[in-house]
Amino acid sequence: MAVYSYDQLYQFTFSVFKSIGCSDTDASTATIGLIAADLRGIDSHGVARLSGYTRLWEANRVNPKPDIRIVHETPSTAVVDGDAGLGLVVAPYAMKVAIEKAKNVGTGWVSVSNSNHFGIAGHHAMMALEHDMIGMAMTNASALVAPTFSIERMLGTNPIAVAIPANEQPPFVADFATTTAANGKLEILQRKQADTPEGWVQDKEGNASTDANILKKQGALLPLGSDREHGSHKGYALGSIVDIFSAVLSGASYGPWAPPFPAYVAMPENMPGKGLGHFFGAMRIDAFRPADEFKSHMDNWIHRFRSATPAPGHERVLIPGDPEREMEIIRMKEGIPLVDSVVEDLRVIAQKFSLTF
Amino acid sequence: MAVYSYDQLYQFTFSVFKSIGCSDTDASTATIGLIAADLRGIDSHGVARLSGYTRLWEANRVNPKPDIRIVHETPSTAVVDGDAGLGLVVAPYAMKVAIEKAKNVGTGWVSVSNSNHFGIAGHHAMMALEHDMIGMAMTNASALVAPTFSIERMLGTNPIAVAIPANEQPPFVADFATTTAANGKLEILQRKQADTPEGWVQDKEGNASTDANILKKQGALLPLGSDREHGSHKGYALGSIVDIFSAVLSGASYGPWAPPFPAYVAMPENMPGKGLGHFFGAMRIDAFRPADEFKSHMDNWIHRFRSATPAPGHERVLIPGDPEREMEIIRMKEGIPLVDSVVEDLRVIAQKFSLTF
Repeated sequence: MAVYSYDQLYQFTFSVFKSIGCSDTDASTATIGLIAADLRGIDSHGVARLSGYTRLWEANRVNPKPDIRIVHETPSTAVVDGDAGLGLVVAPYAMKVAIEKAKNVGTGWVSVSNSNHFGIAGHHAMMALEHDMIGMAMTNASALVAPTFSIERMLGTNPIAVAIPANEQPPFVADFATTTAANGKLEILQRKQADTPEGWVQDKEGNASTDANILKKQGALLPLGSDREHGSHKGYALGSIVDIFSAVLSGASYGPWAPPFPAYVAMPENMPGKGLGHFFGAMRIDAFRPADEFKSHMDNWIHRFRSATPAPGHERVLIPGDPEREMEIIRMKEGIPLVDSVVEDLRVIAQKFSLTF
Repeated sequence: MAVYSYDQLYQFTFSVFKSIGCSDTDASTATIGLIAADLRGIDSHGVARLSGYTRLWEANRVNPKPDIRIVHETPSTAVVDGDAGLGLVVAPYAMKVAIEKAKNVGTGWVSVSNSNHFGIAGHHAMMALEHDMIGMAMTNASALVAPTFSIERMLGTNPIAVAIPANEQPPFVADFATTTAANGKLEILQRKQADTPEGWVQDKEGNASTDANILKKQGALLPLGSDREHGSHKGYALGSIVDIFSAVLSGASYGPWAPPFPAYVAMPENMPGKGLGHFFGAMRIDAFRPADEFKSHMDNWIHRFRSATPAPGHERVLIPGDPEREMEIIRMKEGIPLVDSVVEDLRVIAQKFSLTF
């Protein structure tokens, strides 16, 4: 475990994205998006994925100079073709389109095709906050999740993020995979050689399992709710909605045909669309009620929930976004710790592109 | 247990809504919405609630002749004041506004204040389908749910419904409470004097419980995910988003201040808004891509998921909306079974309004 400053990781990541051919602007946008994950404590989605992105570029699955464009639009909607660009670049483009539409007609909704992994959903949703808007971001992803009553991997971990501004209180920022546990949680357990809790995964025959390596043995993640009795059909429905909004609306590849993140995994056959899909939304607060009024009620909402009586053994009730915001403050000050395997990964990338790390 | 035809329940329910002062049109709208729940097998939300609605009217909490109106709007948004009307009447009004806005600018989003319980969310979301639109409906409700790490009841079961049209396949219709189990599931167990599974409820001290009567003892329902280790913070976030979109955006009463459904429960003090809140959305498919193209990909999506390999012991993988649609076909043909306590309830209502049942 070694600790790096934000600036160190920024400079290195920026030069990697430059090395694969990104413009200065795109490299900066992608770097800010990627390191937002490390800052906010979602270590699985930050520089730990940089080698994955470079391998996708080597496999010609990422276009470093994409011609991202609107292919269809109405006053409140657009479909964006990401031209196989980095999701980290395509997503902010699409979110800006949503925000502009919201300025004009109250809300903006953008479905994106032909993209790649976009980092953490919350980073993009939060772009709306400074405009006094509610922001939303979701994406489909390669299939690792078995629907309720199935043993086949049909859906990605398909996260949903919703960011809602307040006034004196920090914003409400929910950002979660629609599975019981995100894949990154399994990776952490694999490193510790520990088992998962019950209800996170099943084996290839559909039996309950606690093997953190089960995805390498054709097992599957379970939808939020774990099993039918605990509402897994609701997690399955949520993941499906994300898949349909992100990919069927836009013309991206959906369900089990979503392109895999590891470059060594072959692309699915007979893909029904292009690349990964995302979906973004922006709602102007004052399209509903005066922004000051709304934000002061959000202060009240957040204050009331934060002061709800805690259960024994717990000090306080959290508001969605609290842990990540607190982590960001700590890591900006004290630096970002990286586990050895990630440091080694970054060294290999540095060698490959003749950079220093 | 006795079985009634749709027409029998329609006639009786219609005459009850007429008796409390609804117009013919409103009584018909409310009846169709209420009995949709019985038809679709969501027995807790159908005529079983009719006595609850009449008691709210007796307590002057329901206005049978509401002046429902738009109080603020932009091309893609509106806020509707329900004037304390039946949610079963206010919701279709608001959903129609969303659909009209979607016709004009691609999408429509309507937040509603000053309303009451609106029956099943799916019924309203499905109004969008015949217009080749995706429909959404959600509502807040009286607080029965403890956030993760809390023992205080802060949120309702706050359901989300999303209806998505297909072509040859029936539509995708998700409609679910953002809790592990809906309150109606507890009521069924109470009648059977059975325990709940682990993970549905906690007692007033926050201990795990399987007591189906625990809500009467200051216990709480658990958010979807049950506990932190299984993602209850995600269910808590979802329920919160529904609360904020439905009530903070519109000016309704939110969180623990949401008005209670049972008329004998006193209204909360210092309510920050008016009545219950709802949120509706309509997205025109062809605001994104040609409707025929989308619907044929939805056919493909549904077909592929329905043919996913089932787990041992399960015959098939379901698509959200399958069980309710199949139930509707059966009950339209064979009638709607009502348990004795509901029949007795309806007899009491009949006597009260000098009707025959």
